[in-house]
Order: sequence, then structure tokens, then C-alpha cells
Amino acid sequence: MDLQKIMLDKAKAAQKAAEAMTMVSTETKNNALCKMADMLESHKEEIIAANQADVAAAQAKGVRKSYIDRLMLNDDRIAGMADGLRQAAALQDPVGEVDYGIVRPNGLEIRRVRVPLGVAGIIYEARPNVTSDAAGLCLKSGNTVILRGGSEAINSNKAIVKLLQEAAYGAGIPEGAIQFVEVTDREAVQIMLRMNEYLDVIIPRGGAGLIKTVVENSSVPVIETGTGVCHTFVDESADLKMALSIAVNAKVSRPSVCNAMETLLVHEKVAEKFLPELSRIMAEKNCELRGCPRCLSILPNMVPATEEDWHTEYGDLILSVKIVDNVNEAISHINKYNTGHSETIVTEKLNNARLFQRRVDAAAVYVNASTRFTDGGEFGFGAEIGISTQKLHARGPMGLVALTSTKYLINGDGQVR
Amino acid sequence: MDLQKIMLDKAKAAQKAAEAMTMVSTETKNNALCKMADMLESHKEEIIAANQADVAAAQAKGVRKSYIDRLMLNDDRIAGMADGLRQAAALQDPVGEVDYGIVRPNGLEIRRVRVPLGVAGIIYEARPNVTSDAAGLCLKSGNTVILRGGSEAINSNKAIVKLLQEAAYGAGIPEGAIQFVEVTDREAVQIMLRMNEYLDVIIPRGGAGLIKTVVENSSVPVIETGTGVCHTFVDESADLKMALSIAVNAKVSRPSVCNAMETLLVHEKVAEKFLPELSRIMAEKNCELRGCPRCLSILPNMVPATEEDWHTEYGDLILSVKIVDNVNEAISHINKYNTGHSETIVTEKLNNARLFQRRVDAAAVYVNASTRFTDGGEFGFGAEIGISTQKLHARGPMGLVALTSTKYLINGDGQVR
Repeated sequence: MDLQKIMLDKAKAAQKAAEAMTMVSTETKNNALCKMADMLESHKEEIIAANQADVAAAQAKGVRKSYIDRLMLNDDRIAGMADGLRQAAALQDPVGEVDYGIVRPNGLEIRRVRVPLGVAGIIYEARPNVTSDAAGLCLKSGNTVILRGGSEAINSNKAIVKLLQEAAYGAGIPEGAIQFVEVTDREAVQIMLRMNEYLDVIIPRGGAGLIKTVVENSSVPVIETGTGVCHTFVDESADLKMALSIAVNAKVSRPSVCNAMETLLVHEKVAEKFLPELSRIMAEKNCELRGCPRCLSILPNMVPATEEDWHTEYGDLILSVKIVDNVNEAISHINKYNTGHSETIVTEKLNNARLFQRRVDAAAVYVNASTRFTDGGEFGFGAEIGISTQKLHARGPMGLVALTSTKYLINGDGQVR
Repeated sequence: MDLQKIMLDKAKAAQKAAEAMTMVSTETKNNALCKMADMLESHKEEIIAANQADVAAAQAKGVRKSYIDRLMLNDDRIAGMADGLRQAAALQDPVGEVDYGIVRPNGLEIRRVRVPLGVAGIIYEARPNVTSDAAGLCLKSGNTVILRGGSEAINSNKAIVKLLQEAAYGAGIPEGAIQFVEVTDREAVQIMLRMNEYLDVIIPRGGAGLIKTVVENSSVPVIETGTGVCHTFVDESADLKMALSIAVNAKVSRPSVCNAMETLLVHEKVAEKFLPELSRIMAEKNCELRGCPRCLSILPNMVPATEEDWHTEYGDLILSVKIVDNVNEAISHINKYNTGHSETIVTEKLNNARLFQRRVDAAAVYVNASTRFTDGGEFGFGAEIGISTQKLHARGPMGLVALTSTKYLINGDGQVR
């Protein structure tokens, strides 16, 4: 069977299931999520066996250790996946919430209510836990889902999906609600991106390359997630002890994640005092510093930073550092090089804090706190499907509400215009 | 200069102005909108002279009369454009509104505030009034705008834009905030659609062909607007007098607009009573009826409807009619053929009303009222930039809020994670 037909059948089945999902109660959805969690735990040997095939194949290719780490599943990680599904069950269902209501002078009663988006396409890379996390959040918000995981995790994903489908459909979720693309051919992604008649949204989760491909080729609306070139600006008036603590935390607590700092900006008036101390601690943490020419005049041992560095999401123990004249130069640098994720200023000066928060263009703009807090859990949403770095529909950590749309319900007694 | 460069310069200027717009107060924006309105009125002769060139060119091409009517400007229409700008000035500014706020256990204070989207691209067809309407709503919501009108209205649009720019920049709006694409080459649209580094949203306003081109080719996020294949379903239990009034209003009060009815569905139990009466009134209104085979057995004079008819937005005095077995068949027909705009049921049966509103997938789902009410003004939003028929970001009539995004402002006192 040709790939176009395979993909079309999946999309049609997902759309049909989405129509049926409108009649499924929150109770049924929650029960299904718990059954899905139980199923993963009670069949963890199957999942681990499938995962071992993926890990062996990756090792044979000689990939990096961090890559194997992302791919690998064990008892703990499967328990984590099950917990994720149970947490989704415990979240309040956004579907049906009324977020606007008015009675018009002519007596028309207008309500705007939350409804599922319909069919969500999730395109992701190595981590097999995304399979159950995304399926869980999509179902909880009343959507059906087409999952397209990376080829490296194909055996793990197949095993997980089979169990999720069996548990979900057995618990009253419409057949077809969880679709998985077994074909690892990249052409499958291209076909998916052109199915705007069937898919209501595509959410790519992965590296910058994947996201770029999706954004540039999709006729389906996309929510861009992920890449974070995040900045910390240490202002002239900063409490330097606080600044050091925030900078170290933002860089080294988990350098691989998208809310970690990549570039530090320092006000010229405090650079001579701040940078040597920072350099000492970063050396202890094995973090390489790459500096602008003014930094090098203070710390000649720094690697000189290139234009490329200001654009780079290292995801690693590397930090670029630049000395700026003032808060305005810091804001301009950030708005030029950032990816719209998370930025922070450390300052004691109210006006600079206000200016920074007003002018910096990013999903999350902090004063006197680490950028590492940009996260659905930390923001109080309970779970997240990703962090949006675009401005349309959702921006920043996306909870269940980001997986919904609205519709207007209008009730009258014969009104005409 | 090559077209790529021309477009890039416009996009960069709009983006630079968007950064400056973050510091512009509501008062300045309102004042500028009023000055723009005054300027259009005090220079109406210039606009009308430019418009006459467009009208003459269109007439020379021998276009339809309705087309000339859309294109033509006169004193009244220019006054209408000025009123639109003054209405935008009078609307509440959405920028800065806090729509979520929480203090986390660690003391972090999180607020989510409304911010402009940034740079909006508006691609539209014949009506030159869109030029001022769109510019006004974009500026009021703190956005800058790149306008791309149809080639038929190029002289009118140039004249209007020149006046708007002069008034706006003179009143404190950052230079560059109103960009206009003078190049009528279609290639300019293609370039605009690929500028996702500079544009934050593209809103196409026009026919199905334009919208399809934009959706399928844009790497910039798009808000789909407009096309409406709207249905009225007359249920078994309907008050037939009310049903007749709603059906006639939905079809004939303004057949060219997107919220007008295109297909009438009638429950089989009331068809024999309802259709002859409908047919009599529609004949008086010069509205052609195209029926399914069961309709033809009641009214043999109807034109037989083809599969094509169920998909068609006539925008004219033509109505397709189908007899259905029950509310479920009506819902299935609607979800198969509609464009996600507006649908209504006429019924006295509560369960059918509930079922219809829950299962029909559209921006606006009515009970016992005409679909003609789907409109920003009628919904209480004061003005609209269009009616979204997609599910992401905005659905249904879009007021100023649809032209905004949000950002999270997080204030702490040294929190690290």
C-alpha cells in the first residue's frame, strides 16, 4: 500500500474518532487514562524488551551516550510514564468551560465554550516517554492524536502504543483515537504536514532542525516549541551575590534543557567585580566561558566569542558572555538574538525591571529569578505538552488549555437580522 | 531593486517599528487613530480621484457590476472608513491586560499579560476600506502592519496609505508601523508568505482561492478567515413559522456575506408541510432552490442538486435543500460539508438542541436564531478583523484580542531551581 494512502487512512480514522470524542464524558476519559497507566506498568517487560532492541541498534551506530540516555527505558521511567497518565487523569478537564458569556440587547444568549482542537499531530524525536505523555494530554483534552516518533525509538514506541490503544479502547475511548505512524520513512512526515484537511494542529518536539522543517513545510497550523537561547542580564544595581546564584543555576543546574541560560550579559560598571567570581565558579563546574573583546580584557583566558556564539543554543556546559553599556543595550542584544523563550534581569532598580519586562520580546521575562522556572509544573499548570516560542494561540508552557479551541453557542427564540 | 530586497526592507522596518510600539501609550495610539480619521475626511477628494482611476481600469476590463460596487469609494464610504478608525480609538486597549496571575509556593509572582503580536501581514482583495480598517485595528492593538491589497485597488490603496502614514507618524506612531506593498506582482505575496522571521501572523481576507494559496504556502502562522458554507436545520419539532423566518433571513437578507445560509436541511416529517411554503417565499425573493431527490418528489420544479452543490458557497440567491431522516443525519451532513463557520438548528426539543450544539463542529452553533448574527459587532466586540474558521488562536469573529498574544512576567527575589 502506498504511503499516501496509509497516512490518509490514519488521518481519516483520527478525524472520525475526534467526532465521536465530543460525546465522551470526562469520567470515561479519566478512567481510560488510569487503565492506560496500569497497562504500561503491568506490561513493562514487553516495553523494556522492545526498548532494548532500539538501544542495541543505536549503540551499533555509535551514537553519543547522552543520546542513549534519552532513548533508554527502565522500570523507573515506565513508572514515570504511568504517573504522567495518572496526573493527566487528575487534572481538571478544560472541555466545556465557559470563558465568555453575554446576553445581547436582542435577547440572544451567547456563550463561548472550550472544545477540543480535534486531531493533533505530534512529531518527536528520541524520547519514547513522549509517546504516552502526548497521548495522555491529547486524550484528556478531548483530542485524538497522530504520533510520529523518531525511527531510533520505533520498537519502543510500537510497544507502548499497542498497550495504550488496547487500554484506551477497552475503556470507552473511540477506536482510532490513538494513531501511530509505524513508517519511519521521512516522507511520512512530509505527507503529515500537508494534511490540513484532517489535522487541526501539529506540535513538533525536538531539535531546531525538526522544528524548522515543520514550520517551513506545514500547511497544518503549527505550534512551535522548544528552542531556547535564554539570557541573564546582570544590571549595574544588581545584588551580585544573587546574580551569581541565578547565573550559575540558570547555566549549570540542567544545561541540556531549553530554559537553561546560553548567554550572560553584564553591565560594564560591575563586570570587573562580577566576572572573575563567575569565572572561578564556572571553572569548578567545568563550564567553558566564551567572551566578547571587553570580557577578554578582564579575563584573558576566556575563549573569544564569535557572532555564531550569540545565536547558539549550546545545550551544554558552555556560556557566552558579553559586557554591555546599559539596560537598553542588553534589551537590544536579547531582542536580536533570542528565540522568544525566557530572559531574566538581575537588578535592584525598579525602572530597569519595568523597562526590561516591557521591551524584551519573549514568552517569559523574569526579574531576579532563574530562567529555569519556565515549565508547566513550575507555573502551576500541572503538566505540559511543550513550551511555545511562537506568539499565536499559545505562548510559553502549554497546559491542557493550549490543546483546546473554543466555539460560540448562541441560543435564541427566533431572532433574525 | 529586486523584489526580495524591497519586501525584506519593509519587513525589517515593520519589525523595528513593532519594537518601538511597545513603548507607545494607549493615549498616543487613540490620538493617532483620530488624526488618521480626520486626514481621510479632509483629503477625500484625493482618495476619490485615485479611486476613479481604479474604477475606470476595472470597467475597461469589463468586470461584474458587484465587483465595481466593492471597489468604488464615495463620500459616504470614506466617512465610514473614518468612523471605523474613530471606533477603534474608542475601544478598550487590550495591551497590558492581566489574564492570569498566581503566586507560587516559592514566592515567585507570575502574571500573564496581553502584548501585541508584533508584525501582522494583511493580504486582501478588492475593497479599499480594508486598508484603513486593518491598519486601525492593528495599530490599536499595538501591532505594526504590512498591507497587501489587490492590484485592482492599487491607486486607491496608495492614496489611503499615504494619508494614514502621514497622520499616524505625525501623531507619535513609530515610523515604519504602516507598510504597504505597492508592487502588484503576485510574487510579492509569495515572498511575504515565507517571511516567518519577520512576520508574526498573516490574515488573508478574500475569496476561497486567496485563502487556500495563503494556507498552503505560508511559513508565517496564518489565521484563516471567511469562507462560510452555513446550514440551517429545520427539526421535526420546529416552530415552522419561526423556521421559515430564520431560513429566509439567513439566505436572502445579504446573500453575498459569509454568514449567509447556503444549505437548508429539513427533517423528513415536516418537509411536505415546510418546503412548499419556503418555495413560494423564495420564488418571490428570486432565490433558486436546488434539491435532493426527496425534495424533488415534493417540489418537482426544483433544480436537482449535485454533490458539488453541498460544497458550494454560492454567495448568491441560490439555496441547496436536503431532506434528512433525523438530527443525527443533519449533524453528519454538516460536519462533512461545512467550513466551520455558522450553523443553526430550529427545534423545540431540548435534547436535539443540546446534541446539535455539542456535536456540530463550527465557530458558531445556533439554536433558534439566524446564522447572520456571526459578526464582531453583533457579538459585542465592537469591531472585527475577520471571522476565523480555524481552531488555533482565534475562532469566530475576531476583535482586538485576536490581534494580541501574551507573555509571562515573573518577579522574584533571587529564586533558583
